[in-house]
Amino acid sequence: MKIKESIALVQEKRSRDGPLPIEVAPYTCSDFFKVQKRGTKPKAVRWDHRLSLESRNLRTSPLKAASRANQGDIISLGTARPTPEYYPWDVLTMQCRSTAASSGNEQQQSSSMSCLDGESGYDLGIAMNYGYSTGSPQVLRYVTEHIEMVHDPPYDDWESCLTCGSTSALDITLRILCNRGDAVLVEKYTYSGTLGTIHAQGLHTVGIEMDQFGLLPEDLDQQLDTWDSDKGPKPFVLYMIPTGQNPTGATQNLTRRKEIYRIAVKHDLYILEDDPYYFLNMERAGYNGTTPQSLTLDPDDYLQHLPTSYLSLDTSGRVLRIDTTSKILAPGLRCGWITGCSQIVNKFVSYSEVGIAAPAGPSQVMLYKLLDETWGHEGFIKWLNSLSEEYRQRRDMMIEACMNSLPLEVCHWETPAAGMFIWVVVKATKHPEFGQHINGELSQKTLLHIEGEIFKKCQENGVLVSKGSWFRPEGQELQDLCFRLTFAASSKDVLSQGITRFGKALRSEFAM
Amino acid sequence: MKIKESIALVQEKRSRDGPLPIEVAPYTCSDFFKVQKRGTKPKAVRWDHRLSLESRNLRTSPLKAASRANQGDIISLGTARPTPEYYPWDVLTMQCRSTAASSGNEQQQSSSMSCLDGESGYDLGIAMNYGYSTGSPQVLRYVTEHIEMVHDPPYDDWESCLTCGSTSALDITLRILCNRGDAVLVEKYTYSGTLGTIHAQGLHTVGIEMDQFGLLPEDLDQQLDTWDSDKGPKPFVLYMIPTGQNPTGATQNLTRRKEIYRIAVKHDLYILEDDPYYFLNMERAGYNGTTPQSLTLDPDDYLQHLPTSYLSLDTSGRVLRIDTTSKILAPGLRCGWITGCSQIVNKFVSYSEVGIAAPAGPSQVMLYKLLDETWGHEGFIKWLNSLSEEYRQRRDMMIEACMNSLPLEVCHWETPAAGMFIWVVVKATKHPEFGQHINGELSQKTLLHIEGEIFKKCQENGVLVSKGSWFRPEGQELQDLCFRLTFAASSKDVLSQGITRFGKALRSEFAM
Repeated sequence: MKIKESIALVQEKRSRDGPLPIEVAPYTCSDFFKVQKRGTKPKAVRWDHRLSLESRNLRTSPLKAASRANQGDIISLGTARPTPEYYPWDVLTMQCRSTAASSGNEQQQSSSMSCLDGESGYDLGIAMNYGYSTGSPQVLRYVTEHIEMVHDPPYDDWESCLTCGSTSALDITLRILCNRGDAVLVEKYTYSGTLGTIHAQGLHTVGIEMDQFGLLPEDLDQQLDTWDSDKGPKPFVLYMIPTGQNPTGATQNLTRRKEIYRIAVKHDLYILEDDPYYFLNMERAGYNGTTPQSLTLDPDDYLQHLPTSYLSLDTSGRVLRIDTTSKILAPGLRCGWITGCSQIVNKFVSYSEVGIAAPAGPSQVMLYKLLDETWGHEGFIKWLNSLSEEYRQRRDMMIEACMNSLPLEVCHWETPAAGMFIWVVVKATKHPEFGQHINGELSQKTLLHIEGEIFKKCQENGVLVSKGSWFRPEGQELQDLCFRLTFAASSKDVLSQGITRFGKALRSEFAM
Repeated sequence: MKIKESIALVQEKRSRDGPLPIEVAPYTCSDFFKVQKRGTKPKAVRWDHRLSLESRNLRTSPLKAASRANQGDIISLGTARPTPEYYPWDVLTMQCRSTAASSGNEQQQSSSMSCLDGESGYDLGIAMNYGYSTGSPQVLRYVTEHIEMVHDPPYDDWESCLTCGSTSALDITLRILCNRGDAVLVEKYTYSGTLGTIHAQGLHTVGIEMDQFGLLPEDLDQQLDTWDSDKGPKPFVLYMIPTGQNPTGATQNLTRRKEIYRIAVKHDLYILEDDPYYFLNMERAGYNGTTPQSLTLDPDDYLQHLPTSYLSLDTSGRVLRIDTTSKILAPGLRCGWITGCSQIVNKFVSYSEVGIAAPAGPSQVMLYKLLDETWGHEGFIKWLNSLSEEYRQRRDMMIEACMNSLPLEVCHWETPAAGMFIWVVVKATKHPEFGQHINGELSQKTLLHIEGEIFKKCQENGVLVSKGSWFRPEGQELQDLCFRLTFAASSKDVLSQGITRFGKALRSEFAM
């Protein structure tokens, strides 16, 4: 379906449904906002057998449930929500830059948007009060519509829910599913923050082999088939970053995704699809590796080239998709959303009630005013399109710089199709210290030592890179010498200089 | 010390120190901002023996530690922080209402404050980027100064740290200290949200008897002296709401606090001082129960009448004070701060890194612009002063309404000195169903039944109240029939009508 057709369906549904509720912390859920009716798709499987000891008995708070009943002519002496007259702020105004993209997206001109006390769109007094843990209806409606347009989950009882960012979402999800001592399946290299979150809960990690298209289904299958229960219970949570993987930059192709999903069904796995780089996709019509004169920025072409998410392959409700605003809008919002079967999402909401409560009101206001009132669904897709074109240019600049400045005799890399990272694999065997070792085998200690020396040399040369070893699952031996380079953080004009410095550090360390 | 003198010391320190760091997610801590020099007070005791299995091995993430080194002429290809050019917002403007208080605080006139990309006060581009988990230096500096002015903790190595609200702070703190199956000491009635957070982690609660001044030290001491280890490990975490307690409204007097602290030292307890209503204190010079013609709103008088916090009694570093912006600024900010010994606060920061990450940037901007740039320390105290005067008026209205409209034969209450709650104790023995019971003893089931009937009758009469049973620690028998009424949520003009409806419901249930 073309984006304009999807948007027409959404608008039709919105006008049929009428205005959103205007009370404080209203109960809300995705089901209110889906275009497709309930009952037209199969139901998700149940996950009772996978719930942790902690989450099994978690219930909604009685006070919060009671306040849902607060309707009509009822005077609340119940919930201690201070009246909005006592909040010092009464207007929040956001000014948006003309556009992030040099590629000149006309719809995204500079504009100003305000949220006022008492307004009908999103009353600031309500935004600054306590909120329901799914997020406000204003933002949840937009997110649900967006998810249905882009992913169209193939089962009935899916739900979305706002989060306080992906790290928080992952922290909560692991507490829903895992008990202390359990193991989580992860890619052989994965985001160090995720490893931190997993290990903090007393959980272990099991690394699965990867190639240029990410996680290898054969290794996943084999490790589970031959799981030694002396090592603990057989793991059933599979955490992946399928697009522009952090740190390797790999994007799983469709065949790979289908094969992994098949194995997940075979072993009854629950998949955490952490996908912050999904929209930073550089594949599009008319691009063949060199920047063309006139690249199409047609939103339908952009959407068509996006990878097929696990959420949209998920016929059984075994995927929790984790989205974040951090890489596509701003990390400081501390906001994102998850989408999965209602059983798990409802647990997530109950957990939020006893912890993070809800994403911050000002962040939700900024999202609503920009995404819903100003850009609309098409404007957001256009933003994502031009943003990923910006990253495409940065990636190409960095790849070119790598070709020009890195010692090709000792390092290689793949060009990432999405995301923010180039993963440079360095041939440790060419390092001067290599010869000193018996049988030509580099000990783990030596490999870590060489990595540390290169890292230090980089800093001395004025460039900060990330060590491959930071991304290793616990207990996993370092097999290669790798560095993660991001083209996201620096300004464009120093990117190639950064690579020059990295090349200089490598040459110096390898005595070239 | 008078507030103007404290502020002069702060200003002197600020000008000595010069501007705050301007990089992204800078490392920061309270020690940078204290007026009093390190080494002038005793050190906190160590809590190694009290750390949970989970928190014992928690460490700071290597990626985040490495990015701290990012200074001077270094090009970052390291951390994947998207460049602020790619955030859509470039100005955030907040408009503040003239004043919450009818009492006309002149300093708090309507004003507009903006945060811009690249500005020196608090660069919006940095606020919208990833932040360090203690909070930004801008807000942490203010909070540290504020804590030192108001509480002046009597030991050396105290620290403050921003939180994503008190519920989140409590969730994290319990994970730092408790293992599944442990018990937490709480007041006999306590905030139901806290009970939810405690129980969600598989922890138990032990209720300690209370009187009109809150928790009874004798019962605390006795329960710990006679702890039966068959019930599990002896509890060592004491959670209290010492001021305007939720739900009973009780405020502990200084004698009570000192006695409880002494027992905490005796049994080596760690105290969680959850104090959201601290500043909503209605005791002040010139007030004797009826609204005077000209009430002083002198900030020094206000500060002098504030209770002595546990933090300011804490010579050994065994108190974690939990503050929140929810009741004094706006709950939607999802922001607060904790203060305690550096060992526990550092664990808190490490936990934040693997979960909530940091409070939202827009919320921090709103706090900084209002508290630091606009109000300053004195303006904030004036705000708190006039806000609590508002609550004093609401309380007096509600107490008067209770006197006029409740059936005094079956209910009584204390006038709260702080906070938002009136706790109405109803004589269950006067209920018609009482006579039906053998020995005049009301069974638990009957008591809960009567409570439910009154609650239902209230709703039918158009008033929402909170059931006493919602605030019971797990397994604790309901001994009284109680209802919590808040004067915070409704508009002033319907408060007395709400009480009339409550009175009508009671009379109807008690067949009066």
